[in-house]
Amino acid sequence: MITGHVFIAISLDGFVARKRGDLDWLTKQPTDGEDHGYDAFMASVDGLVMGRVSFQAVLTFGQWPYEKPVVVMSHTLSQDDVPPEIRDRVTVTRLGPAEVMKMLDGQGWRRVYVDGGKVVQSFLRNGLIEEMTLTRIPVLIGEGLPLFGALDHDVDCEHLDTRTFPSGLVTSRYRILNAPG
Amino acid sequence: MITGHVFIAISLDGFVARKRGDLDWLTKQPTDGEDHGYDAFMASVDGLVMGRVSFQAVLTFGQWPYEKPVVVMSHTLSQDDVPPEIRDRVTVTRLGPAEVMKMLDGQGWRRVYVDGGKVVQSFLRNGLIEEMTLTRIPVLIGEGLPLFGALDHDVDCEHLDTRTFPSGLVTSRYRILNAPG
Repeated sequence: MITGHVFIAISLDGFVARKRGDLDWLTKQPTDGEDHGYDAFMASVDGLVMGRVSFQAVLTFGQWPYEKPVVVMSHTLSQDDVPPEIRDRVTVTRLGPAEVMKMLDGQGWRRVYVDGGKVVQSFLRNGLIEEMTLTRIPVLIGEGLPLFGALDHDVDCEHLDTRTFPSGLVTSRYRILNAPG
Repeated sequence: MITGHVFIAISLDGFVARKRGDLDWLTKQPTDGEDHGYDAFMASVDGLVMGRVSFQAVLTFGQWPYEKPVVVMSHTLSQDDVPPEIRDRVTVTRLGPAEVMKMLDGQGWRRVYVDGGKVVQSFLRNGLIEEMTLTRIPVLIGEGLPLFGALDHDVDCEHLDTRTFPSGLVTSRYRILNAPG
């Protein structure tokens, strides 16, 4: 069965980015030399699903950071909006969460990295997330793009483990117990 | 110097209660036999400051749980709204956060337990919180009363320590580094 997995950094007050996508509060953290598990996590997935906001934020990095295939969920972008040099690895789709997962399942994917606030929310609401790795950044930014949003009912989670780092980052893994939908 | 201290449980999505104050998602947690540090924390403070919502929620518990003095910040309640049997330990005030702290300082308080979402937010905005102990409950409730709110600028925190419990609760202590205001 194909499953969705979240690996994301959030401020203490629950934001994944400032309102316009800025990550300065995150990138300023003195985390040199710390292994927060990103490489191991990335090695465990078949590819990524993200939304337009995350995609456009990543494009501003200059160099495309992903070797694995990426699916961008957007109602406003098309395949033509993908820079030619990464068009073989990036697919824009207007499918919804369940349809995207069905499509990727058909392509042989088993573990999907689900990234970005809105996409994580929609996958959670559709019961498509199996596990979340949340890294709490020791800063309150007051407002921004929230990781979590409205749900049809409570979602119980099982705490798997927590690791702390000298920088102050705290990483907790949770398994979703009662996926909604 | 008098300082404010937060000790509070929050859902994974950052709420301290459901919209009408319900704590069922918290009280249902199987935490028997775990010491999350509440008694030690309570022993370390001179008393509590809370808002109307927290006060009225505590009143529904039946038995008043606090031996230490409690200050209730409210613009709608008066001292007459305090049940007679606890009127010697509960003071209703319309003062703002800084004025409340000045008043308590004059009464010899040194460490104040600042409780409830709105009151914590206003004390944070006024630079009156020194330390926060946040206990993450492994459940997403979708909506409710948030612990954190808007700020004039980022508030950097220093992670002091984190403890995990068999129930899945994760308790992290943070020192506020750059109190605003």
